[in-house]
Amino acid sequence: MKNFRCDNILPVIGKLTKLLLVSICGLLLCVNRGNAQEKTNFIIIFADDLGYGDLSSYGHPTIKTPNLDQMANEGQKWTNFYVGASVCTPSRAALLTGRLPVRSGMTSNKVRVLFPNSVNGLPTEEITLAEQLKTVGYSTACIGKWHLGHKEQYLPTNNGFDYYFGIPYSNDMDNVTEINTMEDYKNFWLKPDNIKIESFNVPLMRNTEIIERPANQNTITKRYAEEAISFIKKNKEKPFFLYLAHNLPHVPLFASKEFLGKSDRGLYGDVVEEIDYGIGQIITTLKDEGLAENTIVVFTSDNGPWLSFGVNGGSAGLLKAGKGMTWEGGMREPCIFWSPNKIKPALITELGTTMDLFTTFSKMAGVPIPKDRMIDGLDLSQTLFNEQPSPRENIFYYRGPDLFAVRVGDYKAHFITQGEYGQFGPKEEHSTPLLYNLAVDPSEQFNIAEGHPEILSEISDVVGVHKSKMVKGKDQLVDRE
Amino acid sequence: MKNFRCDNILPVIGKLTKLLLVSICGLLLCVNRGNAQEKTNFIIIFADDLGYGDLSSYGHPTIKTPNLDQMANEGQKWTNFYVGASVCTPSRAALLTGRLPVRSGMTSNKVRVLFPNSVNGLPTEEITLAEQLKTVGYSTACIGKWHLGHKEQYLPTNNGFDYYFGIPYSNDMDNVTEINTMEDYKNFWLKPDNIKIESFNVPLMRNTEIIERPANQNTITKRYAEEAISFIKKNKEKPFFLYLAHNLPHVPLFASKEFLGKSDRGLYGDVVEEIDYGIGQIITTLKDEGLAENTIVVFTSDNGPWLSFGVNGGSAGLLKAGKGMTWEGGMREPCIFWSPNKIKPALITELGTTMDLFTTFSKMAGVPIPKDRMIDGLDLSQTLFNEQPSPRENIFYYRGPDLFAVRVGDYKAHFITQGEYGQFGPKEEHSTPLLYNLAVDPSEQFNIAEGHPEILSEISDVVGVHKSKMVKGKDQLVDRE
Repeated sequence: MKNFRCDNILPVIGKLTKLLLVSICGLLLCVNRGNAQEKTNFIIIFADDLGYGDLSSYGHPTIKTPNLDQMANEGQKWTNFYVGASVCTPSRAALLTGRLPVRSGMTSNKVRVLFPNSVNGLPTEEITLAEQLKTVGYSTACIGKWHLGHKEQYLPTNNGFDYYFGIPYSNDMDNVTEINTMEDYKNFWLKPDNIKIESFNVPLMRNTEIIERPANQNTITKRYAEEAISFIKKNKEKPFFLYLAHNLPHVPLFASKEFLGKSDRGLYGDVVEEIDYGIGQIITTLKDEGLAENTIVVFTSDNGPWLSFGVNGGSAGLLKAGKGMTWEGGMREPCIFWSPNKIKPALITELGTTMDLFTTFSKMAGVPIPKDRMIDGLDLSQTLFNEQPSPRENIFYYRGPDLFAVRVGDYKAHFITQGEYGQFGPKEEHSTPLLYNLAVDPSEQFNIAEGHPEILSEISDVVGVHKSKMVKGKDQLVDRE
Repeated sequence: MKNFRCDNILPVIGKLTKLLLVSICGLLLCVNRGNAQEKTNFIIIFADDLGYGDLSSYGHPTIKTPNLDQMANEGQKWTNFYVGASVCTPSRAALLTGRLPVRSGMTSNKVRVLFPNSVNGLPTEEITLAEQLKTVGYSTACIGKWHLGHKEQYLPTNNGFDYYFGIPYSNDMDNVTEINTMEDYKNFWLKPDNIKIESFNVPLMRNTEIIERPANQNTITKRYAEEAISFIKKNKEKPFFLYLAHNLPHVPLFASKEFLGKSDRGLYGDVVEEIDYGIGQIITTLKDEGLAENTIVVFTSDNGPWLSFGVNGGSAGLLKAGKGMTWEGGMREPCIFWSPNKIKPALITELGTTMDLFTTFSKMAGVPIPKDRMIDGLDLSQTLFNEQPSPRENIFYYRGPDLFAVRVGDYKAHFITQGEYGQFGPKEEHSTPLLYNLAVDPSEQFNIAEGHPEILSEISDVVGVHKSKMVKGKDQLVDRE
């Protein structure tokens, strides 16, 4: 594979035009919505490949996550919260744009995610949550893994973020070993000596500059937390939006020496416990700076556990399957909302998605939702603050650009299923969809399609409406150098 | 099957002699250990067939157990806590005697549990925790399912309990339909019309009298909670031991009208939520009566979920398999210890078992541990109160009278495995045991036997010592009328 170079800056002009339009729109509609100090700060903490079952508060017996558990106790623990796709790039596109990745073209049936030799990234005409919030004066930072295009015009600083510190794609990329076949890939990972920082020539960037290569992944989790705290302290007088996207516990796993060997769960547990520790430091900072009551912190992960990595992958708990798949384990994630006195503490079994953060936080900040495109996010604020049901009734489970499954209320129909990510089994199309009641049968064990044609019919209607309105974006992942 | 009759009272004399001896011994050793008011009250709440994953705090997405979750937050949530057997009768014998059921003969390779036509029960020479605590003045009650012998000499009132209110065996027994074959059994359960109170001619007893038959199982959970509260209020001036053994969520499932349809998880969830609600009432009572700070409440279950009952069975969460089996899902259970100001709040990943309650509570009450027999229980008080490691290093997984698996520290070796309870597959004996690191691999997915002969050797030594000291009791389950 070729290494990437930050050498393409032409489409920046389109991006600037878009930013200008969004800004004017924001200004017109948000006049008199209050001054900056009154606006709520937002912190989204995104883990990578962390499974539904990998926190103590979501049932893991040996990974200790006291800080996240305390946030879950003091805030809201959501148990039916979904990501927009079961792999990195499209999931991140969904979170930041509030749109199913199939709309932006950030998913493909030829390649799963962006690679160091990918040509494109998040299309410049897409509007990120950071761009939304900037229109009303938010300071914005992306700290951690980006994975929405590593060429300069696609980097966070061209997508609404004032500041970027992190790696532009996955921590297992830029492999220094030549890997051409699945066999090469397996052999590489089977040899413990290969799993070292030097094997992955991943750059660490500040804004648009590479500051370290390969990134020292032993200390990266700690440095992300430090950068996050520094950003919070610097911006305490302004409203801010911090997107802290840890690139772990995605393989290869690395932890700082303070955490190596600390957990009962092996290296995977060490990594998760270090992330949890940093979150505790962030919460402490918010309290110390008097920001806790005016900040919402939300924690979730980009997709389910990468099961083919065995004990170096996580656990989806009682959910079926993991990363790459449209079973629940691939797309349902732990999700904790925390904000003392603002968020009503509760266990929330209502539906939510990462895309809803775009809409919820935009509305809270007084930024209008774009009208010129389909936004999939819904406003969860009535559930977060007023004990009301979630407005969300459906979940659409895409794999690549294909709709594999749909959840309507408690019921989920699988039209297509396919084996694990990394093991390209054939698609299985179901002439009668598989049907599960996820409230009663969260592990998708008991297909009830036969007895419930009326439910399948209702879901079919939802799918019909959805498909009739679907405009798929041009595949942005397929082109590679 | 024949109905049982309470008509056998001869062996009561042996029991009385034993009680007398235990009492004298207690008196001699416990003089000046403090008066009754200073002794801690003990409440053991035992669910039936509840799985490791069936509480919100252990990761269930749709069963809401706010009272148990709050106890877990305020107290200790144990994540490596085991029962003495993966089915009812032997598990209950282990809890109450502090001994592996193979020692008392309360397990068999011919019959899984006691049935309404069983002749025997817990041998009179066994010493229960209730008998221990009575020697130092505790009031004792067993409320709920007994299942250690339904003939009078085996009932709770002849095993150290001052008071008994409950059913003497499982809530699915005394079936009014003739069931002779596995086929009959399956056909019975497949017909929804069969699943009603009248199908199970189970008696509800107060002390040694049948007061209702069939027991009205719709209201039984509520009545158990009421009886428990009444016992607590009546005994608030004395130290007390309450053993509240709910007979649900074992199938058939019934809930009171206040809970029917209440949960998202269907009838199974309704039942668990009703149990949780009653526990909340008990906690409130303890607080209202000023007893909370001097009472330890522990919640756990008798064995894992009965998976062959589909959505009417529970979930073992991320653990493998369920009831009847020696995989983790069969024998590891949620376990919550609660006592404000006494129990140090924590997530405890150390090992513990139900048998340890016998030893821990006996010692706390100042009652000596019997020296004339092997007691498997260990004293957990240093972990409960002083943040020390658990003294327990091993778990022995018996199925019937055979040792199937052994855990030593984090490692578990399976010597024999066998399929689900109710589906009598053949035993599989492993010439090289299956070996799992449960800390890293709680789901028992990655057999590491090949690379670790030294661990197998260490476990083999533990097994050698264990077997050399093992005296198996005469099978008490096999004889039936």
